[in-house]
Amino acid sequence: MRVAGRAMRTIWPTADGEAVEIIDQTLLPHELAIVRLTRLDDAARAIRDMQVRGAPLIGVAAAYGMALAMRADPSDSGLDRAAATLAATRPTAVNLHWALDAMRHTLAAPPPGTRVAAAFAKAAAIADDDVAINRAIGEHGGGLIAAAQRAKKQRTKNQGARVEVLTHCNAGWLATVDWGTALAPVYRAHDAGIPLHVWVDETRPRNQGASLTAWELGQHGVPHTVIADNTGGHLMRHGMVDLCIVGTDRTAANGDVANKIGTYLKALAAHDNDVPFYVALPSPTIDWTLDSGDAIPIEQRDPREVTHIAGWTDAGARVEVRLTPADSPAANYAFDVTPARLVTGLITERGVCRAARDALLDLFPERRARGAA
Amino acid sequence: MRVAGRAMRTIWPTADGEAVEIIDQTLLPHELAIVRLTRLDDAARAIRDMQVRGAPLIGVAAAYGMALAMRADPSDSGLDRAAATLAATRPTAVNLHWALDAMRHTLAAPPPGTRVAAAFAKAAAIADDDVAINRAIGEHGGGLIAAAQRAKKQRTKNQGARVEVLTHCNAGWLATVDWGTALAPVYRAHDAGIPLHVWVDETRPRNQGASLTAWELGQHGVPHTVIADNTGGHLMRHGMVDLCIVGTDRTAANGDVANKIGTYLKALAAHDNDVPFYVALPSPTIDWTLDSGDAIPIEQRDPREVTHIAGWTDAGARVEVRLTPADSPAANYAFDVTPARLVTGLITERGVCRAARDALLDLFPERRARGAA
Repeated sequence: MRVAGRAMRTIWPTADGEAVEIIDQTLLPHELAIVRLTRLDDAARAIRDMQVRGAPLIGVAAAYGMALAMRADPSDSGLDRAAATLAATRPTAVNLHWALDAMRHTLAAPPPGTRVAAAFAKAAAIADDDVAINRAIGEHGGGLIAAAQRAKKQRTKNQGARVEVLTHCNAGWLATVDWGTALAPVYRAHDAGIPLHVWVDETRPRNQGASLTAWELGQHGVPHTVIADNTGGHLMRHGMVDLCIVGTDRTAANGDVANKIGTYLKALAAHDNDVPFYVALPSPTIDWTLDSGDAIPIEQRDPREVTHIAGWTDAGARVEVRLTPADSPAANYAFDVTPARLVTGLITERGVCRAARDALLDLFPERRARGAA
Repeated sequence: MRVAGRAMRTIWPTADGEAVEIIDQTLLPHELAIVRLTRLDDAARAIRDMQVRGAPLIGVAAAYGMALAMRADPSDSGLDRAAATLAATRPTAVNLHWALDAMRHTLAAPPPGTRVAAAFAKAAAIADDDVAINRAIGEHGGGLIAAAQRAKKQRTKNQGARVEVLTHCNAGWLATVDWGTALAPVYRAHDAGIPLHVWVDETRPRNQGASLTAWELGQHGVPHTVIADNTGGHLMRHGMVDLCIVGTDRTAANGDVANKIGTYLKALAAHDNDVPFYVALPSPTIDWTLDSGDAIPIEQRDPREVTHIAGWTDAGARVEVRLTPADSPAANYAFDVTPARLVTGLITERGVCRAARDALLDLFPERRARGAA
């Protein structure tokens, strides 16, 4: 997507083939800093310190980390050491481990002398696959936004009627290599000239909406407004939202979706007000082994994310401040599960379907044979 | 309620009769500062700068402001000037204007020489009335918590079963003179020895939950945990909330309630999970002229409350930081309306009733004659 008018990805190899560059997302939205990674440890640190975040991007960063490691030590033991180092950065990140396995598989056969080139090629392929999947999600979801605009034009007799989209957290291009998941349809529709506006939930406690979603929409030129997470229900009751689109960290085979805490509340409000509620997801996030979202474990994170918050002073300094009484405990559940009954549709790279097992299997019939029990 | 073991109100006349003291709520939760008001302008500034806030407390502060004004100038023109000065501090605060009218009515007849004593007496009476109403709300609502504990003890076969209460914003004693509205039942039940715990919504964007509710519960010794506003739905889906109690700024005659933005989302989650959702209200907040909550205008406040946040550094300095991109607009709707169908019951000073016109009129039959149309 565009940043200050220029097309960018979140990660890319340098032209000289000697390094990989990333956007340091910890400094957003206040500063666009490009960080050059030249060694294994640079990549490991970037993942651990969350300069890169979002499941797909973490996977690609790990793949490029393997490629950088091969430049220093392409031996079998170098391969082992690189994979172990990267695997330890975010132990629970599924995409990270999947990408490391893919890289090891690709690099096992070639002799050490050819591993650097093979590694960079494979990392680039993983990145391009992510872009292709998200571009396809954008196509399918963009169609929903286009249809919403046609309906609104007719209903309001206003040719310029603007589609109002609400999103939660950051499932934009910053969480992937490009396009994003929930925001891919938004970018697609915007680029096609469909008038739209996005309500951006700030997404406490980590504020990914206020800091990342608002930044990337603004840079690409998409009209948007930041709101407190408390606001969406009021907007929907007053006809100010035409559809919701969110991402997901994990989707159960029955269509229940785990996503950033608070998603369930927005789905309830959408349901109560007949606002369509869509979840955009690359099919690798479907967990075909889970019969229901109730089985998805919910991570509890550091309460300090609730009791403290960081922002920027007018002088441009990043400062963390305490919001709560020193003696008050806080709890920090990171995700919630939205039951399939509240989800209007799932937007995948193969198309849009109902949030239900049979509908998902119709889109991914290859899972039907395996999943038959 | 108690602060560091000592019973306190939010406002009180000094023993020498020469001043009124308040808690400076802008410094909570980080510092308990008592501010001495001796002149009309002190009282006006305290209201305007939100050192005192909450509808009932603003009214009482204005009443005492009139009393302080009488000490300097008990003439008729002094009376007019005092009322005009205080009325301008928070032009839309209904309780403020009601209290000023009551004071003017009381002070109109007595000769100037007796107005100081009459004014202090009337202000004290307004304060005591507020305390009495909220104590009664505590009695009735405390009974609901006691009943919830009896049921939970039976269900869980655990004699020490703890009642889990969720609240939003600050409808505690800090918003009133004492007891509070939504928290009065909590204090009543806690003081009666019923084991309970309160989930405190931080309540973005102004964070009254994180700063005020958490502080007052902690000072009184009530177990509580601060959570992001996004969290309540997850807790309710997992059986971790036994009942919700919130306050209200204005209740329509049909039982629809306007309260801090985000209340509606919690009511939806409570309804979806069969968690009782109660609204505590002193009857003066019922607007008998409104047939439905749809007619309640929703205030939009400064977007800066969303884009910026203030907190305290480790060094004890209050610092305001920016959370959003400089170019991203924000919207700040202050309240939402929760439809009566999502409200289990209204807790008033006369008892608990269904959120419905007939049930309200049964509790306040004197309105039936007037309201008949």
